[in-house]
Amino acid sequence: MASPIQQNLEKKNAEYSADFSKGDLPLPPGKHYLVVTCMDARIDPCAAFGIDLGDAHVIRNAGGCVRDALRSVVISQQLLGTREILVVKHTDCGMLTFTNDDIRAKVKENLGAAAAVELATLDYLPFPDVEQAVRDDLSFLKEHTAATRGDTVVSGWVYDVKTGKVKSVA
Amino acid sequence: MASPIQQNLEKKNAEYSADFSKGDLPLPPGKHYLVVTCMDARIDPCAAFGIDLGDAHVIRNAGGCVRDALRSVVISQQLLGTREILVVKHTDCGMLTFTNDDIRAKVKENLGAAAAVELATLDYLPFPDVEQAVRDDLSFLKEHTAATRGDTVVSGWVYDVKTGKVKSVA
Repeated sequence: MASPIQQNLEKKNAEYSADFSKGDLPLPPGKHYLVVTCMDARIDPCAAFGIDLGDAHVIRNAGGCVRDALRSVVISQQLLGTREILVVKHTDCGMLTFTNDDIRAKVKENLGAAAAVELATLDYLPFPDVEQAVRDDLSFLKEHTAATRGDTVVSGWVYDVKTGKVKSVA
Repeated sequence: MASPIQQNLEKKNAEYSADFSKGDLPLPPGKHYLVVTCMDARIDPCAAFGIDLGDAHVIRNAGGCVRDALRSVVISQQLLGTREILVVKHTDCGMLTFTNDDIRAKVKENLGAAAAVELATLDYLPFPDVEQAVRDDLSFLKEHTAATRGDTVVSGWVYDVKTGKVKSVA
């Protein structure tokens, strides 16, 4: 028995696919770029960042953290030919609201001692300042030659969830 | 000097934000769910999977691999209250086309010996069968209690990049 969330996926996807006309796009991104952004529910990267279907890889995780996206960045750059990376973090990010100790306590409280032990060494990568976090991510990309091709163009941005506007920060 | 990709972001975002009316959405996902899917350029998750702004966390990486999304899944579930996870992989995925040995050779060729050493232990998590990979990811979620709350509903899907249709597979 499908949950309401699953039923929503099936219903909305049936509407989407009924008009679908982009079935011939090739696998590699047509505009050869890659966006790293947050999983936050208030961000629709394709609409807000002007990414047409087939243009770009979009990596999303908690905070839009580049160092947690290393595997995907290497695949995107080395196998699928992307040559530019946009890092887009955002205002009011959940990553600004907790420390590793906070979430480790929550894991122990909600999931028990075994889970706490299993996740004891996981770094959740919270950050206290969003613009600094963008700059740190760009430094990580520049310092880790393994993460990028030498000719990769990188830039950093902050998206404002209140206004829908992006701002260039690095 | 902004690159053409950066200029596109600024121009399209100016259009998007001019009509933006969703600035009051709260941080936690309104429908308390989480989608894990691939970074592939041919997927627009919000449109194709019927996710309205504010509804759900969307995690994307190469292959939509849950085990590479553990940090984000724990944050989503333990701090931001998501209670359902949809794993959506897709046809014609890049992860079906290479092995760890292939990409390690590419890294060495493109980036040199130092990068090859730095990334020598990175598992790129390729898979040979997309439906089996979905089932494996759901098993990972069920076996790793640390990744999920006990009452989390999980389901697995494959999106067809030729037709725009999703299919339930687990």
